[in-house]
Amino acid sequence: MGATLVLRITAVYRVAGDAASIEARAQGIALEQSIEAPLAAVRDDYVRREIVGEVGAIREIAAGRFEVEIGLSAATVGDDAGQLLNMLYGNSSLQADVELADFHLPEEVIARFPGPGRGIAGLRARAGAPARALTCVAVKPQGLPPAGLAVLTEALALGGVYFIKDDHGFADQAYAPFAARVAANAAACRRAADRTGRLACYVPVLSGHYGRMRDQIALAREHGLAAVMIAPMIAGLSTAQALAEENRDLIVFAHPTMGGAARIAPPALMRLFRLVGGDVGIFPNYGGRFGYSKATCLALAEGLRAQWGGLKDAMPTPAGGMTTARVGEMLDAYGADTMLLIGGALLSAPPERLVEESAAFVAAVGEHR
Amino acid sequence: MGATLVLRITAVYRVAGDAASIEARAQGIALEQSIEAPLAAVRDDYVRREIVGEVGAIREIAAGRFEVEIGLSAATVGDDAGQLLNMLYGNSSLQADVELADFHLPEEVIARFPGPGRGIAGLRARAGAPARALTCVAVKPQGLPPAGLAVLTEALALGGVYFIKDDHGFADQAYAPFAARVAANAAACRRAADRTGRLACYVPVLSGHYGRMRDQIALAREHGLAAVMIAPMIAGLSTAQALAEENRDLIVFAHPTMGGAARIAPPALMRLFRLVGGDVGIFPNYGGRFGYSKATCLALAEGLRAQWGGLKDAMPTPAGGMTTARVGEMLDAYGADTMLLIGGALLSAPPERLVEESAAFVAAVGEHR
Repeated sequence: MGATLVLRITAVYRVAGDAASIEARAQGIALEQSIEAPLAAVRDDYVRREIVGEVGAIREIAAGRFEVEIGLSAATVGDDAGQLLNMLYGNSSLQADVELADFHLPEEVIARFPGPGRGIAGLRARAGAPARALTCVAVKPQGLPPAGLAVLTEALALGGVYFIKDDHGFADQAYAPFAARVAANAAACRRAADRTGRLACYVPVLSGHYGRMRDQIALAREHGLAAVMIAPMIAGLSTAQALAEENRDLIVFAHPTMGGAARIAPPALMRLFRLVGGDVGIFPNYGGRFGYSKATCLALAEGLRAQWGGLKDAMPTPAGGMTTARVGEMLDAYGADTMLLIGGALLSAPPERLVEESAAFVAAVGEHR
Repeated sequence: MGATLVLRITAVYRVAGDAASIEARAQGIALEQSIEAPLAAVRDDYVRREIVGEVGAIREIAAGRFEVEIGLSAATVGDDAGQLLNMLYGNSSLQADVELADFHLPEEVIARFPGPGRGIAGLRARAGAPARALTCVAVKPQGLPPAGLAVLTEALALGGVYFIKDDHGFADQAYAPFAARVAANAAACRRAADRTGRLACYVPVLSGHYGRMRDQIALAREHGLAAVMIAPMIAGLSTAQALAEENRDLIVFAHPTMGGAARIAPPALMRLFRLVGGDVGIFPNYGGRFGYSKATCLALAEGLRAQWGGLKDAMPTPAGGMTTARVGEMLDAYGADTMLLIGGALLSAPPERLVEESAAFVAAVGEHR
C-alpha cells in the first residue's frame, strides 16, 4: 500500500505527565479524540490508516507539563463547527488535566467555514472610520425596561459611540423582551442621528435556539439593524456558523461567555469564533476583572487579524472593566485595528453626564496617535 | 417599601480567596453574574432590589478555598436553558479560579423546563425490563461505513443489548452520513428482532444546529426509532430544550462531551441535562479513563433520580472504559435503576464472538442481585 495523503487537523493539548509515560498518554488522547475505542476494536484498514488520531510532536513545556500534537482526520469533522469542537476537545474536556492549547486547520478545511462576513473593513465602513480605532459600549444594567435602555442608548449615540451593544446577559426577558428592546433602541439611534447626522449601530444579543435566533435576526432587520451579537459557547458553534452563513451582510459580534478559562486557550477560542463567522471578537482585556495576561490578549488579537486561509479578519475587541483613562495605553498595545469596548465604567457616570462621558471616550480614541 | 418576594435561583461557586477578601469577591461574582456592572451604574430601584445578585452563605471548604452562594433573579433567566447557563456561569467561567459547584431552582423555575419526556419508567417500558438494570452499547469506531456499523449493531442486538447508540463522535460524515447510517442500523435491529422476538433500540446521535437536528429526528422517526442522542454542551442547552419540548415521546440520551471537567461540578452538569430533557444521563464512570471519583458518580446518579419539582427522573448511565467484569461491582454501587454502557471493551472482541460477548454482558446485568 502506498502512502495516502490524509487531510488532518492538528490539535495541540497541554497535559500533565512525565517523560516515561507521556507518549502513552498522548496515544490515549489520540484515540479518545478520534475513535474513542482501543486499537483492538479497529479491524478496518481505512479506519486504522485515516481515522485513528496520530500522535505528532511532544514538547515538555515545564516540569511535568507537556504539549502534545495530535493529527485528527478532517473527514471526522466535515463542515460542522460543533463537530469540529467535539473532535478537538469533546471527551478530553472531561479530563481535568487536559487543556486545548491550539489547533491548526489545512486550507481545505478552513474553506468549509464561513468566517466573518464583513471583517474589519466592514466594521470600518459601517462606522465611517477608515483608519482609527473603533468604539463600542455595552448598554446595561439588565432589568431596565426598553425605554430605560433607550435613554442610555440615545445618550451614547449622541456622544458619538459607533457600536452600542446589549449586555451579554440580555435575552428575551419579561422586563425587556427582545422585540420591544430592539424597537426602542433602534429608534433611539435614529433620534440621535437626526441631531448628529450619523447613525450609531445598535447590536442586539440573540438568545434561544437557532429557530428563535433566525426570528430575532428578521426582526432586527425590520428595524434596519446591521449587526447582532451571539455567544457561540452558549448557542453552540453550529448555530453561530449557520446564522453567519445565512447572513453574510450582517456584522456578527461574538461574546466569550461560557468560554471556560484555562481549559481552552483564549487565542484558540477566539479563532473558533472567527471561523464560525464572528466579525467582532470580544475578549476580557488584561488588567481588568479577568485573568488574561497581556501576552495572551496580544496573541489573541493577532489570531483574529492574521491571514487565515481565505477568511476575512475579525476585529479584536478588548473589554471587561475598561475605562477611558486606559484608552491610550490600550491602543499603544493593540494598534488601530481594534475596537475598544467600555461598559460599566461609562454607565457609572451620572445620567446627565453620559453624553459628555461617552464623547470623551470617543475623543480619546479618535485623538490617539 | 415593604419586602418583595423575589424569585431567586441560587448558584453555588467554589472560589479561591482568603477570609479577609472573600466577601468582596463574592460581591464581585454577584455583580458579574447579574448586571455585569458596578453598583454605581444602577439607578433603578427595581434593578437594585430584584435583579442585582445577592450574596448568600459563604463557607470555607478548605484552606484558601470557599463555597459562596449567590441568589440570582429568576426573571433574568426566563424559560431558556441557554440563558440559565449564561446567568449561572457565563462570564465567571472566564475566571480561572471560579467553578460552578451547584445550583438550586425554585419549583416555579423548574416548571418552566421540560425535563425528561420518558424518564426511567419510559426506558424500562421500551426495554421490557421492569426492574433490572438496563444495558447499552456504543457502536464504534467511526470511519466504518453504514453497512460495517450495521453488522456490529445486528450482533449486539442478537446478543440482547437493549440500547445500541452511536459513538458520540458520529455526525454526518461523508463515510457514514446520518441518513444512510440510520437506515442501515434500524434495519439491522429489525433483522435481529426477527430472530430474537425483541426489537433493540438504536440511538442515533444528532449533530449540527437545531434546524438540522429537527430534520434528523424526522428521519429517525421514519425508520421507527424511539430514541436519539444529543450533546447539550456542543448543541447548546437551548437547542436540547427545544427538541425535548417538541418530542416528548422520544427517549433523549444526553452525552457529556465538552462538559469541561473541574469547571462545572459533574452533578450540576447532569442536572442541567435532566432539566433540558435528557432521559438518559451518560457520564464517565469512576475507575475508567476519566477522573470522576466514586462519590461524585454516586452524587450525580442521585441527582438524576431524585425528586426535582415535577420533572421525570433520568437514567444514570455510567460509561467510559467499562467492562463486563465490572458489572457486579457497578450495580452494587449504583443499584438497579441504572443503565450500564460499554463500548470499546465489547467491540474489542473478535467479530465472530460479538454476539456471545454482548450476551454475556446482558446476562451479567440480568443475573445481578
